[in-house]
Amino acid sequence: MTSTPGAQMAAEIAEQPTSLARLLDGHVGYAEAAAQIRALAPRAVILAARGTSDHAALYAKYLLEISLGLPVGLASPSTFTVFGSRPDYTGVVWITISQSGGSPDLVESTNAARAGGALTIALTNNPSSPLANAAEISLDIAAGPELAVAATKSYTNQLLGLWLLIDMWRGGDGSAARVLPELASKALAAPGVEEAALRARYATAMVTTGRGYSYPTAREAALKLMETSYFSTQAFSGADLLHGPLAMVHADLPVIAVVGPGAGGRAMIPTLERLVERNADLTIVGDASAAPGASVVIELPEVAEELSPILEILPLQRLSHELALVRRLDPDQPRSLAKVTATL
Amino acid sequence: MTSTPGAQMAAEIAEQPTSLARLLDGHVGYAEAAAQIRALAPRAVILAARGTSDHAALYAKYLLEISLGLPVGLASPSTFTVFGSRPDYTGVVWITISQSGGSPDLVESTNAARAGGALTIALTNNPSSPLANAAEISLDIAAGPELAVAATKSYTNQLLGLWLLIDMWRGGDGSAARVLPELASKALAAPGVEEAALRARYATAMVTTGRGYSYPTAREAALKLMETSYFSTQAFSGADLLHGPLAMVHADLPVIAVVGPGAGGRAMIPTLERLVERNADLTIVGDASAAPGASVVIELPEVAEELSPILEILPLQRLSHELALVRRLDPDQPRSLAKVTATL
Repeated sequence: MTSTPGAQMAAEIAEQPTSLARLLDGHVGYAEAAAQIRALAPRAVILAARGTSDHAALYAKYLLEISLGLPVGLASPSTFTVFGSRPDYTGVVWITISQSGGSPDLVESTNAARAGGALTIALTNNPSSPLANAAEISLDIAAGPELAVAATKSYTNQLLGLWLLIDMWRGGDGSAARVLPELASKALAAPGVEEAALRARYATAMVTTGRGYSYPTAREAALKLMETSYFSTQAFSGADLLHGPLAMVHADLPVIAVVGPGAGGRAMIPTLERLVERNADLTIVGDASAAPGASVVIELPEVAEELSPILEILPLQRLSHELALVRRLDPDQPRSLAKVTATL
Repeated sequence: MTSTPGAQMAAEIAEQPTSLARLLDGHVGYAEAAAQIRALAPRAVILAARGTSDHAALYAKYLLEISLGLPVGLASPSTFTVFGSRPDYTGVVWITISQSGGSPDLVESTNAARAGGALTIALTNNPSSPLANAAEISLDIAAGPELAVAATKSYTNQLLGLWLLIDMWRGGDGSAARVLPELASKALAAPGVEEAALRARYATAMVTTGRGYSYPTAREAALKLMETSYFSTQAFSGADLLHGPLAMVHADLPVIAVVGPGAGGRAMIPTLERLVERNADLTIVGDASAAPGASVVIELPEVAEELSPILEILPLQRLSHELALVRRLDPDQPRSLAKVTATL
């Protein structure tokens, strides 16, 4: 830990091309786990996580639904820990995602799922953690030690780890992700981040939005902004934004729209049109052609749509870091947060 | 529609003891639907909804997980409508919830689920709607015509309809809910709402929180506040609030904590302690004993925990209405919103 504000977070953001390459080079046990899941022919998949990891879980939900057509749910840990549910989960795959592997409610709900017959898999950054021990299969995301309170490199390695597992599950070999380290370096250098941070200096709230694979990105960006800059940031799917929350969008509310390549990005067009109509102060991350009416555009290199969340979050992590510095805050020391949050 | 600001919304809020009684007196087809589900012995349940109805879906998720131990997921409609997923949903129960029954993405995803073999059920306030026709089973929530843009009575009747269906599914007779109309009248008269509205006159953002059955209430309250008062309102589960967002809580941020009876309310205690520590301007809805450190307490009549969301939302609907009036806005005419939102 250094005393330059935000140095730790900046170092971990910059390290992502390396940490992604590390997981691509060595993802021990992933192929075996995929084979075990295929042999089970699961009736449903449940993903359990909290905070940043919950956004990785949401990404996996889209990927599983779209590419495997399975029923997928996100766990509500309190069902098990507070209400004591003891489900029959025979034939269910239960995947818990946690950087630290230390959250007691995730350990307890994984135990309940395993006792109920689920095939339990823990994806953590610490293979000797209580969660890794609780699950039948432990997979290491190999992000390396993460010291900053605001998770960055563990998030992108969670996304990549989930993509690798699911790609092998559906019969792929994971090679399509080999392009990521190089593209991540480019995405980290994308211009526009500083300008977007300066524009938001005196904002009192912010909105992020995206659809499909980009919706988890919007959620994670909102959490990063809240953790480091302390203002209310809400993430909406591009569709849900039109079901009510649009009423609160106005000219002095910065809106970050994550516009991915492919179908998800195209589905954002009606939302972007309504935002421009409402005169929102719009920053676009992703596809520059979605730009008309935007204040700032942060363009990303092209990549397959299902891998795009791994790049999209990078400039938004940088924005969270920059904006905190512009506001004279230290993103390495978010008030009242600890690295490992223990909830029951 | 009258010209007194908010008269329509106020009338529909006040009507809820009557609309709840109407559904209790006549819920045609619910017992038959429950019998059909039991005969199927479903492998998983998927709930599909948008906006307010999505909070009713979240309530059903808790109820199904806790009382039936099934794997349950909330649908991401874009999986079907944007990405064209055609899942194998044999043995899956798919429940779509929509006031109007008119949202094209819900109709299309219900069609996809039905084509994929799911037993599809539509819970709507309009049995002749496209959605009611798309599903194999159509259940009427019998809330009566809802004209205000901000949904109120349709939400509580959705909660009750889901509770009735699930209670019969698990072998009950639905009679435990008979107490609701009388308790709803009491909850609508609970003091504290006006004071909470006055306190929030100049707030620029707001946070709502709850756990377990009360988490959907926190989500729905946040949406109501955004729709009618146009400021950023974020809902967090009491556990997730501690995983990051707590950093942005400060003394000038109103926080509404929904503290239900039973296990969910007790699980809120660590969160309430942290909020008081952060000097949040706290309003408690529910259990008055959770009050130490709170600015305002809105106490609710006692009821079984799993039915409490039907009462908890009532003072919060009133708060949304009152706060809009205090801010000289018309809650019957939220800017840029229409009653039926068509998303694709």
